[in-house]
Amino acid sequence: MKGSVGELGEFGLIRELTSRITSAPAVRLGPGDDAAVVAAPDRRVVATTDVLVEGRHFRRDWSTAYDVGRKAAAQNLADIAAMGAVPTAVLLGLAVPAELPATWPIELMDGIRDESEAAGAGVAGGDVVRGESVTVSITALGDLRGREPVTRSGARTGDIVAVTGWLGWSAAGFAVLSRGFRSPRAFVEAHRRPEPPYAAGPAGAALGATAMTDVSDGLVADLGHIARASKVRIDIRSAALDVPAQMSDIGQAVGVDPLHWVLTGGEDHAIVATFPPETKLPARWRVIGEVLPTRLRGGPGGPAALPRVTVDGAVWDKAGGWEHFAAPEGGDRR
Amino acid sequence: MKGSVGELGEFGLIRELTSRITSAPAVRLGPGDDAAVVAAPDRRVVATTDVLVEGRHFRRDWSTAYDVGRKAAAQNLADIAAMGAVPTAVLLGLAVPAELPATWPIELMDGIRDESEAAGAGVAGGDVVRGESVTVSITALGDLRGREPVTRSGARTGDIVAVTGWLGWSAAGFAVLSRGFRSPRAFVEAHRRPEPPYAAGPAGAALGATAMTDVSDGLVADLGHIARASKVRIDIRSAALDVPAQMSDIGQAVGVDPLHWVLTGGEDHAIVATFPPETKLPARWRVIGEVLPTRLRGGPGGPAALPRVTVDGAVWDKAGGWEHFAAPEGGDRR
Repeated sequence: MKGSVGELGEFGLIRELTSRITSAPAVRLGPGDDAAVVAAPDRRVVATTDVLVEGRHFRRDWSTAYDVGRKAAAQNLADIAAMGAVPTAVLLGLAVPAELPATWPIELMDGIRDESEAAGAGVAGGDVVRGESVTVSITALGDLRGREPVTRSGARTGDIVAVTGWLGWSAAGFAVLSRGFRSPRAFVEAHRRPEPPYAAGPAGAALGATAMTDVSDGLVADLGHIARASKVRIDIRSAALDVPAQMSDIGQAVGVDPLHWVLTGGEDHAIVATFPPETKLPARWRVIGEVLPTRLRGGPGGPAALPRVTVDGAVWDKAGGWEHFAAPEGGDRR
Repeated sequence: MKGSVGELGEFGLIRELTSRITSAPAVRLGPGDDAAVVAAPDRRVVATTDVLVEGRHFRRDWSTAYDVGRKAAAQNLADIAAMGAVPTAVLLGLAVPAELPATWPIELMDGIRDESEAAGAGVAGGDVVRGESVTVSITALGDLRGREPVTRSGARTGDIVAVTGWLGWSAAGFAVLSRGFRSPRAFVEAHRRPEPPYAAGPAGAALGATAMTDVSDGLVADLGHIARASKVRIDIRSAALDVPAQMSDIGQAVGVDPLHWVLTGGEDHAIVATFPPETKLPARWRVIGEVLPTRLRGGPGGPAALPRVTVDGAVWDKAGGWEHFAAPEGGDRR
């Protein structure tokens, strides 16, 4: 595929994009009509949408179009899994400049398709328009398979907090890349192409998770969403967190406490959940903390602090997730 | 609400946006969690997504944010209706520059909510990020209520072609606006805020429509999608089309044949469908043509022309829908 998006034309590009799509069990009617039809056997559909903007959420010199596609799909599919649902389909909304090489959106679609397949979903449809810069909007759909959705508001005092998937790997990779390095490869790859533990979402729901979310803004920030929604405090035991030796090495090299990446790095899309204390968790879940009443007994947050997240009983003041417009803290991302 | 999006901040803006949302019967879990949960009683969900880019699909000096919101929602909800489905929910993906007045996305959300309500749907969730320019991505979901989806590929020789809703009004309004006028108001309003006949989609399906679509690219172009998908020719009788006297007056004033607007103007989101010839159609459906075999008997298209649309038996050479990247004709929009 040579030439630009403008040379290929809208219909030519759409033909190329739809030709990359493979069939998926849940996609009953794929691209080519006014709308797609996707199976929703549960009689409810779980739906989420995320927008990625070039220069802000990805850089074309750091990530290939394929990796951007995988990442964009992953962050939406992880949101579906974090509700306890099984991903079924994604839709793509794409704005691209006419001068963009036509290979870029085509490889993006390959990445979206492959990540969707990895999550058990298919590409159901989309829209492509011309824009000043590259904007990738993905909507993901999923099925609850008869279970209730696991929201952020069900954590109860006494619950254990457990996580599965990777924490801080993408952030460590970002730190490496932003200093001009391309290795260690494992972390750079984790930044370019996260691998969310999709199956852990429905599995967590089946295990009786009382609250669940994927870690997209950072562990402390995302547990903060659960703490606020559930009106509880969550304490993380830092000794329970996995800081790989290689991550410590990078931290030393670039002068960053690797615990910072593990506690505040998003984009790995680990799944974190709270469970009743008696829950027998499979080995892939790591218990990292517990749910406490909101009222702090002393501590830096003051005697009657708001529901929040503590690390080893203390307020982690380097916390906080993304804040796109530079405003005060608080609130939910969606 | 004073100040810019940047001053309000991402979380502040999201709080404002979600506070505008009203409950809707199909939205079981709205914004504030990893994903929304929407009712899908049919066990299938109809889904579509469209992207609107400032300067290309709307202009902030011609349309208020509220009207952009209504229009963006309308074009997606009309796609749902055109499958024969009942709209249930929309999701919003929004990229905005930090310097944009905060009132803009808030009024946009009001428009999206009101148009969704008009279609019987609710706002289920979304994502807001910072971008160089305003990009509005909407995903709409719908329910088939036990009926099969009406695709573009079911038109059969002998079927009648019927339309309901407005044709050419938005295009006439655009012509007026682009010449610096603000009246006649009815056409300018139609351009700013289309009123798709949402109920006509499920009603058309119930009447036995063999193929159906909404008119978003223009009547000839959208019937062309049906003709190609169904491998038939469609002939429109121009005398059967409704050209209001006031539209003729504008046409004369600006030197445009008003039939051009009716045949090629998109964005009114009329619903056009093919029906078996014996179908008794309610008065709000206007029969405008018939489905013929693909092989033209003489005529300007040549003796063995491709499936296409003719007007009074002749090829309408001013036809064709939007082509965002200036490429050769053909193909489907999705």
